[in-house]
Amino acid sequence: MAELLSPDRYFDPEPTQRALAREMYAGVANLPLVCPHGHVEPRLLADEQATLGTPADLLIIPDHYVFRMLYSQGMAMEDLGVPRADGGQVERDHRKIWQRFCDHFYLFRGTPTGIWITDELATLFDIHLPVTGANAQPLYDQLAEKLAMPEFRPRRLFERFKVEVLCTTDAATDPLLHHQALRASGWAGKVLPTFRPDAVVNLDTAGWRENISALSTLSGVDVHNYATFTQALEERRAFFKQMGAVATDHAAQMVATLPLSTHEADVIFQRALRGESLPTDAANFTSHMLFEMARMSTEDGLVMQLHPGSLRNHNELIFDRFGRDKGADIPLAVDYTRGLRPLLNVYGNDPRLRLILFTLDETTYGRELAPLAGHYPALRLGPPWWFYDSLNGMQRYFDQVVETAGIYNTAGFNDDTRAFLSIPARHDVWRRASANWLAGLVARHIVSLTDAREMAYEMTYGLAKRAYRLE
Amino acid sequence: MAELLSPDRYFDPEPTQRALAREMYAGVANLPLVCPHGHVEPRLLADEQATLGTPADLLIIPDHYVFRMLYSQGMAMEDLGVPRADGGQVERDHRKIWQRFCDHFYLFRGTPTGIWITDELATLFDIHLPVTGANAQPLYDQLAEKLAMPEFRPRRLFERFKVEVLCTTDAATDPLLHHQALRASGWAGKVLPTFRPDAVVNLDTAGWRENISALSTLSGVDVHNYATFTQALEERRAFFKQMGAVATDHAAQMVATLPLSTHEADVIFQRALRGESLPTDAANFTSHMLFEMARMSTEDGLVMQLHPGSLRNHNELIFDRFGRDKGADIPLAVDYTRGLRPLLNVYGNDPRLRLILFTLDETTYGRELAPLAGHYPALRLGPPWWFYDSLNGMQRYFDQVVETAGIYNTAGFNDDTRAFLSIPARHDVWRRASANWLAGLVARHIVSLTDAREMAYEMTYGLAKRAYRLE
Amino acid sequence: MAELLSPDRYFDPEPTQRALAREMYAGVANLPLVCPHGHVEPRLLADEQATLGTPADLLIIPDHYVFRMLYSQGMAMEDLGVPRADGGQVERDHRKIWQRFCDHFYLFRGTPTGIWITDELATLFDIHLPVTGANAQPLYDQLAEKLAMPEFRPRRLFERFKVEVLCTTDAATDPLLHHQALRASGWAGKVLPTFRPDAVVNLDTAGWRENISALSTLSGVDVHNYATFTQALEERRAFFKQMGAVATDHAAQMVATLPLSTHEADVIFQRALRGESLPTDAANFTSHMLFEMARMSTEDGLVMQLHPGSLRNHNELIFDRFGRDKGADIPLAVDYTRGLRPLLNVYGNDPRLRLILFTLDETTYGRELAPLAGHYPALRLGPPWWFYDSLNGMQRYFDQVVETAGIYNTAGFNDDTRAFLSIPARHDVWRRASANWLAGLVARHIVSLTDAREMAYEMTYGLAKRAYRLE
Repeated sequence: MAELLSPDRYFDPEPTQRALAREMYAGVANLPLVCPHGHVEPRLLADEQATLGTPADLLIIPDHYVFRMLYSQGMAMEDLGVPRADGGQVERDHRKIWQRFCDHFYLFRGTPTGIWITDELATLFDIHLPVTGANAQPLYDQLAEKLAMPEFRPRRLFERFKVEVLCTTDAATDPLLHHQALRASGWAGKVLPTFRPDAVVNLDTAGWRENISALSTLSGVDVHNYATFTQALEERRAFFKQMGAVATDHAAQMVATLPLSTHEADVIFQRALRGESLPTDAANFTSHMLFEMARMSTEDGLVMQLHPGSLRNHNELIFDRFGRDKGADIPLAVDYTRGLRPLLNVYGNDPRLRLILFTLDETTYGRELAPLAGHYPALRLGPPWWFYDSLNGMQRYFDQVVETAGIYNTAGFNDDTRAFLSIPARHDVWRRASANWLAGLVARHIVSLTDAREMAYEMTYGLAKRAYRLE
Repeated sequence: MAELLSPDRYFDPEPTQRALAREMYAGVANLPLVCPHGHVEPRLLADEQATLGTPADLLIIPDHYVFRMLYSQGMAMEDLGVPRADGGQVERDHRKIWQRFCDHFYLFRGTPTGIWITDELATLFDIHLPVTGANAQPLYDQLAEKLAMPEFRPRRLFERFKVEVLCTTDAATDPLLHHQALRASGWAGKVLPTFRPDAVVNLDTAGWRENISALSTLSGVDVHNYATFTQALEERRAFFKQMGAVATDHAAQMVATLPLSTHEADVIFQRALRGESLPTDAANFTSHMLFEMARMSTEDGLVMQLHPGSLRNHNELIFDRFGRDKGADIPLAVDYTRGLRPLLNVYGNDPRLRLILFTLDETTYGRELAPLAGHYPALRLGPPWWFYDSLNGMQRYFDQVVETAGIYNTAGFNDDTRAFLSIPARHDVWRRASANWLAGLVARHIVSLTDAREMAYEMTYGLAKRAYRLE
Repeated sequence: MAELLSPDRYFDPEPTQRALAREMYAGVANLPLVCPHGHVEPRLLADEQATLGTPADLLIIPDHYVFRMLYSQGMAMEDLGVPRADGGQVERDHRKIWQRFCDHFYLFRGTPTGIWITDELATLFDIHLPVTGANAQPLYDQLAEKLAMPEFRPRRLFERFKVEVLCTTDAATDPLLHHQALRASGWAGKVLPTFRPDAVVNLDTAGWRENISALSTLSGVDVHNYATFTQALEERRAFFKQMGAVATDHAAQMVATLPLSTHEADVIFQRALRGESLPTDAANFTSHMLFEMARMSTEDGLVMQLHPGSLRNHNELIFDRFGRDKGADIPLAVDYTRGLRPLLNVYGNDPRLRLILFTLDETTYGRELAPLAGHYPALRLGPPWWFYDSLNGMQRYFDQVVETAGIYNTAGFNDDTRAFLSIPARHDVWRRASANWLAGLVARHIVSLTDAREMAYEMTYGLAKRAYRLE
């Protein structure tokens, strides 16, 4: 594995470019990590004594990148310890789960998951055995031993990683107890909540009415119509903001932002409360609410993030058996040009709005997102998302976005991960990819070395802070 | 031309990567050829005395890659000897056809056709004259002389090419007489049929009712309604399987897999028998039948191949005058995510199904196909198809598919060709492209040299065998 | 800045490829410029004494590439001197505008605008100060001094640039007075009009009825129904042709080319005259008229250019305040395969038609445009348009088009610019990008050096002349 951790990894082999990439990278490799969007559980950091669990807890059971690949090659999710929705039996022997993973680690050759895990083992754990079936048990032993040490507790790792700020993602109905505990603990680590109201805004969410009840309880507003719904959301936004939140986050299957009249919105909302939604209600209401969320962001200054274009829970069998977020969300083609127009025509020229867009449809980088972000003052483009948080994904993003929008209309990097331990590896991939891309520009005399150095700093540190108003 | 046949052809010029590519390639260059999908006429191999005809028969008249380009630049199809549907007069002097081709061979600069033909002439015929108008007649003489030799008969070439297995593509109504003759001849070459029922499944096929009659005759089932249609198809599948078939193949303009009720299917089928189809019948029936074909594959184990997204016979004048497959099929954007969902929700988790997907819409590689194949156990991705069976097509495929799906959810390579003689050149392009891509991963320390060697073997040999259950 | 003007700029750093690129480039760097499509004002060349104005007139105020980026980062259009539609006050101090531009020139790092401006300052003005806020005033002084010199008058630059022919773009209702003055002046520069009838053909154009009145006046045909409309258009085409025009140019939001009956066309046209258009009228009429324009081109031989797929004036606030062409036109996904079929089925096989297609949807290069152009004799593909007139845009175009269509179904380069001064820089980027791409083919032994030299000549000079019938 040693050869994989070359200090020149991911750089172009051409010597001129490689030397420049090395130089670019050296300037940014040790900058603090700005993590404005992710899914780390605040619980891990709220409790000083929290641990990361077993190697299977750490790298397999919660990671849909990992188990989706193993599942695609015929392994049962149960055999990987993924919990069933009905509480049915799954593998509990974490050594066996680990063995299965190591037996099939070759599946991850050439994938970001392969890169991250290889990097994590070597860089964080100083473990250099190749991940193979034969090495599975010794690897488990070494990992388990380290994970038991105090320096592998999440807070110590947070400090070791030099995380300057980490934003979690939290339901509108989350009381933010862990965040409150975190603040109360006096620990210096900066961990902020993010307001994600999907489960109350998207009427077709499983358990939507229960979510509305929770929203009433938490906001102190009795939500019984559209007016009180809006009021409750504004209440929660204010609470999140008071708890340090700088942003909101929104999912939507399609991009549509057409506002309804208040009357129409109320009619749809009340139908949903009565459990009588029409087939088109959910889509129309989400479209309307994205428009409304832009209005609220314009007013309260929370940065609005939009992650559209995923058909969630594509595989019904997996959804029924294991629930959501099990690696079965599949992207769709998206029309940002028409879909965002109503919102942008009202708020896109307003300097108070900051709207950060993500995509799973790379064809929109050059065709729609860069042209939009290179014009509307409210827009910034988020980094390559999900399947595209990868070396090729980054290269395509740079090549297709920057010529039209420049780097200053992008939002730098965020790791968007549930896997706390993978944060440094993910940032390192971005830093190396950025360094290598800039080296290519310098080597071809497209930007000067001086400019490239500034750009490297912005891409890996400055832009993320400014985009999320974290300065 | 000599410079074009450098042993380093198609490799990146950067010395580190090139040296690695050379090494990767050396390990796979001489592996046997696995050809699980193609359009070689079984007639050529059924008869030991069959020949490949004249140079024009070999390289021009049947090759739509060739004559489409010549046509696009103003040459008449008739002047290239392409037969007319009405039997009208076309050029019969093959030397003249050859001259016209050589006069315009410059049009193929930078195209796969240019690469294949250059390779074929040099590697198979040991002919090194550049293809130009001035050299046309000497080239014709040299080629004709060789083509007359016994070692240029198809069976000898099959052996020389080291073809381990070659699958043809055969209509559901094909009696497979050539395949029977082949088996009876005692020749050791492994040539298998593939079941392609498009002409009976797609109601809008020209001559559909005649095809149904033929289906009745061959299956021994009197097809007069949907039930007997299904029965006849199952009968033919069983026959193909008995004749060695391992797979089926399906075209469809759009990807839709929504099943009808048996009653609805019957109503549509009977309308078609009466010649009274409604405008939407064909699309709905094809959608239903793709679902049904997945069911049958789940039951009989034949690997299902789906090649969608081509608007066939775009140019009506060419279709009327020359018929189908004349280079005028033009791709469309395709929605696999929604279109395959009904099928995948019923059969996608079933280990008995193997569904291999092809595309002419490269935007779906990263957005839809790799995410689907990296999750559903039934899926594998076929290699770049048709216009994308090219160096850049392969590079984009590797770069967009592997990070999400890995290489083990792909089906390796197949040549998909009518041009028997081009088989080795096409595999060689894939082997070199694979070697070069892997060299890039090694040079950037993304995979180890050891892993890359295994990957090269799989990509050029192992995966195709396993994907098509040829082991 | 000196390092940016390396003689090797934009070439791959790998020494083998770079040496070949240098050699390819040397063969074409000094060829005359063929400019068959652009938006230079003929006024500039009609009057021998015309000047280019101040540095802000030259590089900022009229250039939507420039002010869109500055606007996206929060600068007001008024502060950049962009004129308001209502004549309201905007910045008039060109030194202040220039200062703002220089203060923010870093936004253009890695963009084509950054490249062009850097090149223009150094190559045309021999100015080598970096564009920064600190250097703004000295830069202004140096530029203003040069711009006042006779050798910076447009005609002298035209000659210095070695422009062999330059086509402007002119409304159907333009009397071509500047073109007439140009011809009358006896100057040898070849400047030709292009017939662009969008503002009379697209019924939803602001001021359409006034345009129709102007059409009546200029054509001498009283346009009061569809028949006289057609007659007037034919009249104007004949006039443009007589004034040297070789081409027409057409925009359309979507690609549709379905002809209406003459009666239907007349009904729609008359509804529009009465100001009673139905919501679908404009789209249907444009679709019909594209078909009709192909008919007329088949008859009169004017090359037809089609630039579809842009949602014009996406930002209503900007449109209301500043009018059209203000950097707020945003691309859409386009379906050429279905959309062009009606037109191609009637005229696509006709050698009298030459239809040059442009796109802002790069996904269509490989999927639709190259397959269409590699088949239909009437088609050629225009170079990368607008946001894709860039190094990466060109590389993607070469990589996605040529394998299927070859280079001989492309139309070479055109600069499509309003910015007269940027013409040489834009051609130089194309020449370098072509040279570098060809060098890559030679270095990988895909084409021979001899062939690549011919291809370089064609790509940078020959193809444009032949595509536009300028020989």
